[in-house]
Amino acid sequence: MTDRNRLIYLPLGGAGEIGMNCYVYGYGPADQERLIVVDLGVAFPDMDGQPGVDLILPDVAWLEARRDRIEAIFITHAHEDHVGAVGHLWGRLRAPVHCRPFTALHAIRKMEEAGHSTDHVKTAPVWPGKVEAGPFTVQFAPVSHSIPEASALVIDTPAGRIVHSGDFKIDRDPVVGEPFDPELWAQIGQDGVLGYVCDSTNVFTRTPGRSESQLPAPIGELVAGAKGMVVATTFASNIARLKTLAEAAVANGRSVCLMGRAMKRMVTAGEESGVLRGFPRTLSPEEASEVPRENLMLIVTGSQGERRAASAALSRGSYLGLEMKEGDMFLFSSKTIPGNEVAVARIKNALAEKGVDVIDDSHGFYHVSGHANRPDLEAMHDILRPRILIPNHGEYRHLREHAQLALSKGMTGIVAANGSMVELSGNAPRIVEFIEVSKTYLDGAAFVGALDGVIRDRMKLALNGLVAVALIVDEDDVLLEDSWVALRGLPETAGNGADLAEMIEDELAEAMPRFDGKTVNDDDRLEEAVRRVVRNLCLTEIGKKPEVTVLISRLMAA
Amino acid sequence: MTDRNRLIYLPLGGAGEIGMNCYVYGYGPADQERLIVVDLGVAFPDMDGQPGVDLILPDVAWLEARRDRIEAIFITHAHEDHVGAVGHLWGRLRAPVHCRPFTALHAIRKMEEAGHSTDHVKTAPVWPGKVEAGPFTVQFAPVSHSIPEASALVIDTPAGRIVHSGDFKIDRDPVVGEPFDPELWAQIGQDGVLGYVCDSTNVFTRTPGRSESQLPAPIGELVAGAKGMVVATTFASNIARLKTLAEAAVANGRSVCLMGRAMKRMVTAGEESGVLRGFPRTLSPEEASEVPRENLMLIVTGSQGERRAASAALSRGSYLGLEMKEGDMFLFSSKTIPGNEVAVARIKNALAEKGVDVIDDSHGFYHVSGHANRPDLEAMHDILRPRILIPNHGEYRHLREHAQLALSKGMTGIVAANGSMVELSGNAPRIVEFIEVSKTYLDGAAFVGALDGVIRDRMKLALNGLVAVALIVDEDDVLLEDSWVALRGLPETAGNGADLAEMIEDELAEAMPRFDGKTVNDDDRLEEAVRRVVRNLCLTEIGKKPEVTVLISRLMAA
Repeated sequence: MTDRNRLIYLPLGGAGEIGMNCYVYGYGPADQERLIVVDLGVAFPDMDGQPGVDLILPDVAWLEARRDRIEAIFITHAHEDHVGAVGHLWGRLRAPVHCRPFTALHAIRKMEEAGHSTDHVKTAPVWPGKVEAGPFTVQFAPVSHSIPEASALVIDTPAGRIVHSGDFKIDRDPVVGEPFDPELWAQIGQDGVLGYVCDSTNVFTRTPGRSESQLPAPIGELVAGAKGMVVATTFASNIARLKTLAEAAVANGRSVCLMGRAMKRMVTAGEESGVLRGFPRTLSPEEASEVPRENLMLIVTGSQGERRAASAALSRGSYLGLEMKEGDMFLFSSKTIPGNEVAVARIKNALAEKGVDVIDDSHGFYHVSGHANRPDLEAMHDILRPRILIPNHGEYRHLREHAQLALSKGMTGIVAANGSMVELSGNAPRIVEFIEVSKTYLDGAAFVGALDGVIRDRMKLALNGLVAVALIVDEDDVLLEDSWVALRGLPETAGNGADLAEMIEDELAEAMPRFDGKTVNDDDRLEEAVRRVVRNLCLTEIGKKPEVTVLISRLMAA
Repeated sequence: MTDRNRLIYLPLGGAGEIGMNCYVYGYGPADQERLIVVDLGVAFPDMDGQPGVDLILPDVAWLEARRDRIEAIFITHAHEDHVGAVGHLWGRLRAPVHCRPFTALHAIRKMEEAGHSTDHVKTAPVWPGKVEAGPFTVQFAPVSHSIPEASALVIDTPAGRIVHSGDFKIDRDPVVGEPFDPELWAQIGQDGVLGYVCDSTNVFTRTPGRSESQLPAPIGELVAGAKGMVVATTFASNIARLKTLAEAAVANGRSVCLMGRAMKRMVTAGEESGVLRGFPRTLSPEEASEVPRENLMLIVTGSQGERRAASAALSRGSYLGLEMKEGDMFLFSSKTIPGNEVAVARIKNALAEKGVDVIDDSHGFYHVSGHANRPDLEAMHDILRPRILIPNHGEYRHLREHAQLALSKGMTGIVAANGSMVELSGNAPRIVEFIEVSKTYLDGAAFVGALDGVIRDRMKLALNGLVAVALIVDEDDVLLEDSWVALRGLPETAGNGADLAEMIEDELAEAMPRFDGKTVNDDDRLEEAVRRVVRNLCLTEIGKKPEVTVLISRLMAA
């Protein structure tokens, strides 16, 4: 440890995965740095990896232990993977939360839901306005993305300027919100950028990015050709897209109905914050059900196949009095996020069964990405000409590819996955420490560590099924021959048609009298002995070794 | 019921999903048709839908009940989704299994593994050779696909000719096996085709299909430019691809090592059946580990991210003495099947962490599909000019799109999903009956119906966790206050840090003395009362209602 001040960067989430963004910057003497946090996002669980979990949050144990050193939290934009954990984690960090007005509406709601005072959310000015936070001066520089008021952070420190890209694309005509401003970015870069921490999502996409403004024409044509009801889905937060869809409806004599809580909330937030103007008047579902179907467009949630969203509900049957029929059209104005393919296909197939024409973006007409493709990443590198490029917002392969790209262009590219603390100051920027970071699962109301074993145990139950066995050891330490067995997630009968639970009880009745006293008197030994009998029998009878839970009731002399 | 003979088609698997192919044709008076079965395939389970299940098999209950009417089983080709269930289901159908020699090698192995006589597998001649099966005359017409000796079936019946396409593409130079033969197909179509039951996998792909022969050049170039070890993965059954990969290795001074059981088995089967000639000599893993890495190519299983395959093993660490390092290259010469994206990305990321360059087919250079794209489907329609087109091998949306395409070209297109019995004879071909068909899960050694509830129960355990409770009702019908509680897949402590199992025991000790006699003396009531107490406490303490299993031990007076 020295007294020398250093500038550090530490990703706690979002580097090595897409989602759950949380980054830390620090400045000061080693282990005494003053800290700022950029983004507190969530990731979404799936049956495959986190069954039953409600949300995945970054593991902020490192930050919590240094809470007194946190100057502020900055949120780049209102997507859930950037703002979603603010309510759940604020109580452990307790620093002011700075964000622009549209984002603030979301952060405030999350603080309210978690029972925290909304006073901690501070509305930040846009560039050239400044937020001072200890040794950091932070400016919100507008970028285009797929949500209003997305921002990069220009972070000035005594060691130099850092640009944290946030999620961004280069869009000169984003339909809603601020277009890409080359002069602004030239200005940000002109005095030298020490480090550029940069979105890597689309680093493998070699074609130039496309503008949101390329969509109104093809979507308008599509709607013009539709005969029955039109239903369109996209991310609710993509307010520009909602506008494009709604305007295509109105231009073709259709009224618009928004379905799904997030849809209405986003349009309201857009109007309240002033970023959205002139959105067509919308109908309630009750009103919509009175409108002839050829004069109606529903804009609905659930573009990723979420089971409880409006899209899925409409694919299964009627929803709030509205039902899709032969000759209607359903438009996915969206990309399917990897992992959601099967859920989305389920909806497409259910709609096809109803005779609905399903249109998706497989031909590239009805959706554009919100992230910069490789040529646009290169354009930003060329404008900012940072000394160091640190890729973030990507899986490991994206980070590596982006760092290699930086190297090939003469920058120092550093692959820093979650937990890698990078020192940016000094002559040789490099990883100086690895912090153990896990993930935190929100499971009902409980926080469960990803490595606690709780979820692994659930997966074992799902893979193997469970045999629960109750045994009684009487007052004289005698193990009763009778056991009680219940099966969960296992076939009731063995191959020969016999009742499996009874077979297990019989097998135990035969085996248990042979257990010695040492086994009977020790819970662990007895459990293990019973488990072995049950698993072996099941392997023989159903070809599978189940999980076994043994409940031993030891009766006490009265 | 009438005495009039009719020709029927009944899909039991593969129509409404991709995988698990099983189709039935029948000819004769209604409910007395003589039957043939085309394909007995499997589908692969996932954690999301079928946790713990080993294989998904078609539900052949309808066929089994009519076993005496089955003349024969025909297998179009050796992919698992067409031949994989032969061993598991043959015992319920007991008819001769006809297939071409390469396919027969696989069918025989599956019969052996299931303990059936391999004499039931009959090697069929290729077109113009014939197999007679009751009222059916069946010819195996070679098609190109992504495995040797794939075949369409030309099925002549008294009601007319049916062509069952099998999985196919139009490839005039497939590297291994028979090229597309326009004369043969003109001949098959010339006397009129009543019905064409046709692969729909790529009906949404509007570009013409590409030939396997387009791959050797780019793959050769890629390997020529590689510095370290090269590892390539593809489906083991794609013997043409294995040849292309191995020849690219040899041409660039590299020895070839096949890793993964399926790889070696497929090359052996290819050589034994004579379809594969001149495959380069391969090294064992032990030999390969002695070769400098720049002179080595491994061809490995696991292109779909399967956890236990060679690809996954290499991504995690060393495998059979071989390990990937910085500067090596890993080639996915394959497409990721929907649903496997996350597993494949996991491998790519693990390899990227080792510094391996991962190349996939995202730019279309290193893989071609084995299925006909839309223009090639249309070309086949135009050659055969069937009266009726019945799409198969597709999800519902593929079937619908393909049927609409047929309609637009003047054919009768019939969407017949699993269980839809179509009458092809008569003036108005149509669906005449719906059969209830489910799916059968192979779970260990047990067959479990998809609707039996066993797997749904497993999913509930995974989503909600489990509380097991043991209670004792003594000889005098008194419920003892002490209960024994075990948790599975739940946090051990509640929010306040208290032990959750103990809290449940305490809560039950308080609640149970208030249960009335009717409750205590009735297992169902007692279970339900206990369940309610446990679930309510858990909802308060951990925000979640778990599954509850109650084991009641009723002691009998001695």
